[in-house]
Amino acid sequence: MVKQIEGGVTAAKGFWAAGVEAGIKYKNRRDMALVYSEAPCRAAGTFTSNVVKAAPVLWDKKIVEESPYVQAVVVNSGIANACTGKQGMDCCEAESRWAGELLGIPAEAVLTASTGVIGMQLPLDKMKEGIKKLAAAKADGLEAGLDAAKAIMTTDTVPKQIAVEMTLGGRIVTLGGMCKGSGMIHPNMCTMLGFLTTDACISKEMLGKALREDVVDSFNMISVDGDTSTNDTLLIMANGLAGNEEIVSEGEDYDVFREALHVVTTYLARKMAGDGEGATALIEARVVGAANKEEARLLAKSVICSSLTKAAVFGHDANFGRILCALGYSGAKFDPEKVDLYFQSESGRIHIFGEGTARDFSEEEATKILSDPEVTILADMHRGDAQAIAWGCDLSYDYVKINADYRS
Amino acid sequence: MVKQIEGGVTAAKGFWAAGVEAGIKYKNRRDMALVYSEAPCRAAGTFTSNVVKAAPVLWDKKIVEESPYVQAVVVNSGIANACTGKQGMDCCEAESRWAGELLGIPAEAVLTASTGVIGMQLPLDKMKEGIKKLAAAKADGLEAGLDAAKAIMTTDTVPKQIAVEMTLGGRIVTLGGMCKGSGMIHPNMCTMLGFLTTDACISKEMLGKALREDVVDSFNMISVDGDTSTNDTLLIMANGLAGNEEIVSEGEDYDVFREALHVVTTYLARKMAGDGEGATALIEARVVGAANKEEARLLAKSVICSSLTKAAVFGHDANFGRILCALGYSGAKFDPEKVDLYFQSESGRIHIFGEGTARDFSEEEATKILSDPEVTILADMHRGDAQAIAWGCDLSYDYVKINADYRS
Repeated sequence: MVKQIEGGVTAAKGFWAAGVEAGIKYKNRRDMALVYSEAPCRAAGTFTSNVVKAAPVLWDKKIVEESPYVQAVVVNSGIANACTGKQGMDCCEAESRWAGELLGIPAEAVLTASTGVIGMQLPLDKMKEGIKKLAAAKADGLEAGLDAAKAIMTTDTVPKQIAVEMTLGGRIVTLGGMCKGSGMIHPNMCTMLGFLTTDACISKEMLGKALREDVVDSFNMISVDGDTSTNDTLLIMANGLAGNEEIVSEGEDYDVFREALHVVTTYLARKMAGDGEGATALIEARVVGAANKEEARLLAKSVICSSLTKAAVFGHDANFGRILCALGYSGAKFDPEKVDLYFQSESGRIHIFGEGTARDFSEEEATKILSDPEVTILADMHRGDAQAIAWGCDLSYDYVKINADYRS
Repeated sequence: MVKQIEGGVTAAKGFWAAGVEAGIKYKNRRDMALVYSEAPCRAAGTFTSNVVKAAPVLWDKKIVEESPYVQAVVVNSGIANACTGKQGMDCCEAESRWAGELLGIPAEAVLTASTGVIGMQLPLDKMKEGIKKLAAAKADGLEAGLDAAKAIMTTDTVPKQIAVEMTLGGRIVTLGGMCKGSGMIHPNMCTMLGFLTTDACISKEMLGKALREDVVDSFNMISVDGDTSTNDTLLIMANGLAGNEEIVSEGEDYDVFREALHVVTTYLARKMAGDGEGATALIEARVVGAANKEEARLLAKSVICSSLTKAAVFGHDANFGRILCALGYSGAKFDPEKVDLYFQSESGRIHIFGEGTARDFSEEEATKILSDPEVTILADMHRGDAQAIAWGCDLSYDYVKINADYRS
């Protein structure tokens, strides 16, 4: 039983947060965030597969692998600290050192993350001032969590957070998280910036396993623009304060934890896709009847990555040929004559393609469905039992506008 | 010695063409084309790698493989005859039969090609009338070639054709071609619609080999939107009327023919990229110093496929981080600290990234370069001697506009 509750990263016991204005690049908005745990945490992370890795990605990989525990994450938006050479690494080290001193924890227990423009150096003086403000502002209420979720936004239009409760061995365990999108979104191995906190007691090994197993069907199944960022980072911290018996192997408790994790990551992934740069609609590609899971994922992801399909949804145009085309170049094998395609939304569901040709559907009904804020493209491949879901968004004028002028 | 001359598909000896209005889907514009040779031709073709293959692709593959010779191609724009089931195949058969009867050649010597909306059936009566008009209008002058190049256009803004002359064993040999873009452009194994004609005498085997060797560095290196079409077709017809000694193996003549072919295909590929839907600039990604050819191609193609890079060029914004990011997720391995990046155009050249960080370049100069109609992004990987060039275009409001409303 997994139940959604209010809040985000501060929902679980012992987690504090803050979001402050540090003037890193943006003016008059929160641009630095802190997540802090009263107690030491086991941590796991997945990071970008891009060969070009931002300094904080390299820094965090090392900490997650080598540190016995972590206790805080310092995040900034505006500048990505990517392609910044040695100076960029020195900056991560300084951030962790300053935060460690102020929070009374070792520098090696402080993770860092950055998002924003690639190729610019972070202003050290402003970062230092920002960390001071964060340490002073940190609080354990839901408001502090929301402040943090706002501070990590770049072109996001809304903060993204969620929290859930589960019961493990009679103990209430909480898991919460926040993330930011919304451009350069095509996670591979992991995603953008996502921070999850839980008071579950779980071994580092099982925490890492749960995260790795989950991302392939959550954050790795979304795409806004096909660009895999240099900064993609998903971190989870577990401080054990819920007092449940430690999860050290697969079993009932692990399954419940995995389920809760999936609720949280899927919620955040959908939010991220739906709030993609310039998006007016969330597109869900649901592939059923695939020969195997791998092919189902390939097919679903190919549909939500197709610029032409995305532009057609923006235009509320039932251009199903582009969907078939995207299925066709996905890399998966299938017989086009056997595919059934449907559009569905809260307005209804229509069969648009089958037996190798267009079905006789109502264009009016199709346009109505495609005008809804959440549109599902359902493809039944009739080859087996595997299924997968991927999430993306439509391609609008605003995507171009936002990205033609992002640095200025 | 390869020299550019006037004309397109009718430049080579014995080739005729026509472009007429058949009202297939568009009104008041040419939408059917014919290419015809007085003499039987050896033919070779490369076709889409998409699992979903349009009926004319399946039809032409069979003819290119099985027919002893070909003598004509019938093309229509407006409707792609893809995802049209048995009815679509029957239509190809009818087109070839009608054209064969009117031209006095076997149906098996007639290739067909279509481009336009996927999922609609071609109107048989209009196709039949159109083929009658084509047979009546066919002519061997340059004007007829241009008419054909206009008739195959969809969202293209200009017709695309070229012709060159070479000397093989003392004989003047001519090679010409035409193609159309400009959306759903991400050729794999081949490209959109491209038709090449030559009066060279060359064996079918060597003609196929030349085409296959060429496309990996020409049409397969362009992308407008990452969508590999269901209809991609590149055909070459050689009627031998130049009277050169038949090319039956590698050697000097084959090399000259390959060079001429590359001049023609590269010219058409660049035109196609520069006239991509909504494009305001041609983007050339030139990768040098790669470890091997395969990596060079991956890197160059990744840059021109990046939506964020494309949007930055549209905005004349020197956002080099997005280029490094795209190189990073290309799949090729490299050390970001060793990469040098440059922007260049007819306005000049600037070094923007090196030694792992941004160079101290003038934003004003960068904007000037990025405002030119042809922009080169040069990346030196400093790993070896391999190089590759890929071509794409910027991402503009008009790309979205064109594709949000393409069917109507």
